[in-house]
Amino acid sequence: MLIFKENTVLYADNDKEIQGAVMEKCETKIGFITVSDRASRGEYEDLGGPAMQAWMTKALKSDWTAVASVIADEQSLIEQTLIEMADVEGCSLIVTTGGTGPAKRDVTPEATATVCDKILDGFAEQMRSVSLQYVPTAILSRQIAGTRGSTLIINLPGKPSAIGECLEAVFPAVPYCIDLIEGAYLETNDSFIIAFRPKHAMKQS
Amino acid sequence: MLIFKENTVLYADNDKEIQGAVMEKCETKIGFITVSDRASRGEYEDLGGPAMQAWMTKALKSDWTAVASVIADEQSLIEQTLIEMADVEGCSLIVTTGGTGPAKRDVTPEATATVCDKILDGFAEQMRSVSLQYVPTAILSRQIAGTRGSTLIINLPGKPSAIGECLEAVFPAVPYCIDLIEGAYLETNDSFIIAFRPKHAMKQS
Amino acid sequence: MLIFKENTVLYADNDKEIQGAVMEKCETKIGFITVSDRASRGEYEDLGGPAMQAWMTKALKSDWTAVASVIADEQSLIEQTLIEMADVEGCSLIVTTGGTGPAKRDVTPEATATVCDKILDGFAEQMRSVSLQYVPTAILSRQIAGTRGSTLIINLPGKPSAIGECLEAVFPAVPYCIDLIEGAYLETNDSFIIAFRPKHAMKQS
Repeated sequence: MLIFKENTVLYADNDKEIQGAVMEKCETKIGFITVSDRASRGEYEDLGGPAMQAWMTKALKSDWTAVASVIADEQSLIEQTLIEMADVEGCSLIVTTGGTGPAKRDVTPEATATVCDKILDGFAEQMRSVSLQYVPTAILSRQIAGTRGSTLIINLPGKPSAIGECLEAVFPAVPYCIDLIEGAYLETNDSFIIAFRPKHAMKQS
Repeated sequence: MLIFKENTVLYADNDKEIQGAVMEKCETKIGFITVSDRASRGEYEDLGGPAMQAWMTKALKSDWTAVASVIADEQSLIEQTLIEMADVEGCSLIVTTGGTGPAKRDVTPEATATVCDKILDGFAEQMRSVSLQYVPTAILSRQIAGTRGSTLIINLPGKPSAIGECLEAVFPAVPYCIDLIEGAYLETNDSFIIAFRPKHAMKQS
Repeated sequence: MLIFKENTVLYADNDKEIQGAVMEKCETKIGFITVSDRASRGEYEDLGGPAMQAWMTKALKSDWTAVASVIADEQSLIEQTLIEMADVEGCSLIVTTGGTGPAKRDVTPEATATVCDKILDGFAEQMRSVSLQYVPTAILSRQIAGTRGSTLIINLPGKPSAIGECLEAVFPAVPYCIDLIEGAYLETNDSFIIAFRPKHAMKQS
């Protein structure tokens, strides 16, 4: 739980102060979380995080700032990082990579479900459905998506090549979803990916 | 929670009495709930409720009575209305329209999940799958279906044109589902929509 | 809850001792549970259990031993049987048949969800999706799959002819799933069904 006190943010559980962490609503921030025991220990290079950022760079025409983190497969740590990126940094979108399989250490969906207000099952269905065209083990993925306040959180697979496939499958619905939860207004590069918005939701450029 | 006391029904929370609300099992009732802040305040015309009723009129050959309600996007109010239509009115089927998106005020699925004994994920999957053929933002719908005693409850989208698409996608399974939970025996107009029942479940006409 | 005490296993709830129930990790065991009030009372022949075993015999090249049980649609009994087959018998895979519909007595998914650590929604989606090609009432199935420790549990329909359709739809992902949860290494008869494993996960034969 976060407690806001004047210009500082206190974590109720450990009283650790984060100075100057006042949310700036005017700036569009996107969070990138790589969940991997080995990458967090530096045992191998994080490929998922950069793959997600590279995809987003191609997809978005709007300005945005990246907030990135590489962390171990620990449920409480994932939850804390999601909460900080959502509530403190004010990210409109957070994408995670890794930790969505059936293994004991895979706990990213559990952490995501815990911090979200609403789960959007359609994202998971659509990502699995598209991944199934590539590999029958796509059904093993437990990746979910949901909202926390004005932040949309999407779990992506750990495999870098599968990240693009999944984002391509769901991103056309992402900008309008973030409109509905009152986050930033995202615009896509139509030559790369076309987002759908009902006419009444489009801002004039 | 409902407390039955002789021929009256008492709401435990507010002690409001509903006279003569004894359930009549012989009559087939279908509940229609429009969940919309603005429609409930009369700020615009309820189009979803009439669209659901018009569809049902075309689909069903059996006699039935409509029980309709237009209410605000308040979770406790939606729950109370679902419980009343299921337990007091004895509706075999309740369809809702509205409140299934990701926005903060969208709480119809939460209310439905709270009052249901069993959730039938296949309805949600099938409705989203069909809606995806029309619009990529179909994955944002959190509509669910489930059973409460002998009542089947189905969430439909708020957009009137999408109501028919979703009902068409799942209705072939609805009459047999209601048989299995011991609700009314529904018969469809086969020229409009064909319901599936295993042979052993068909009544001779 | 199971309490392991030296070479015996005690059920905390009833103190019933099961002698010599020490798990042998070297042997591959598969559990088959038929959930049916009538079959458990001997009122009709269990066809689902043998259908699941016959399918597995065709599918698997590896050696395995069957552990089979025919039980009533009682949630606590299903849970107890799943726990015993997983924790005491050490089954790497448990398949169930029956009790997945919307009727009041159908409680197999509830029991499965209760004993599982993780639910794998992709199995349910894929099984319903394939069953929908045969019958529109496939959306009524609430069958799920999940893991309990090193055991994968899959709910299958009650109808014997639908068992093969569902197993065919998900089995290509089963051996790798069991690898990931550190269960037995299963090999399939490729002429019957081809399982997918990433190259790094394949054992040399």
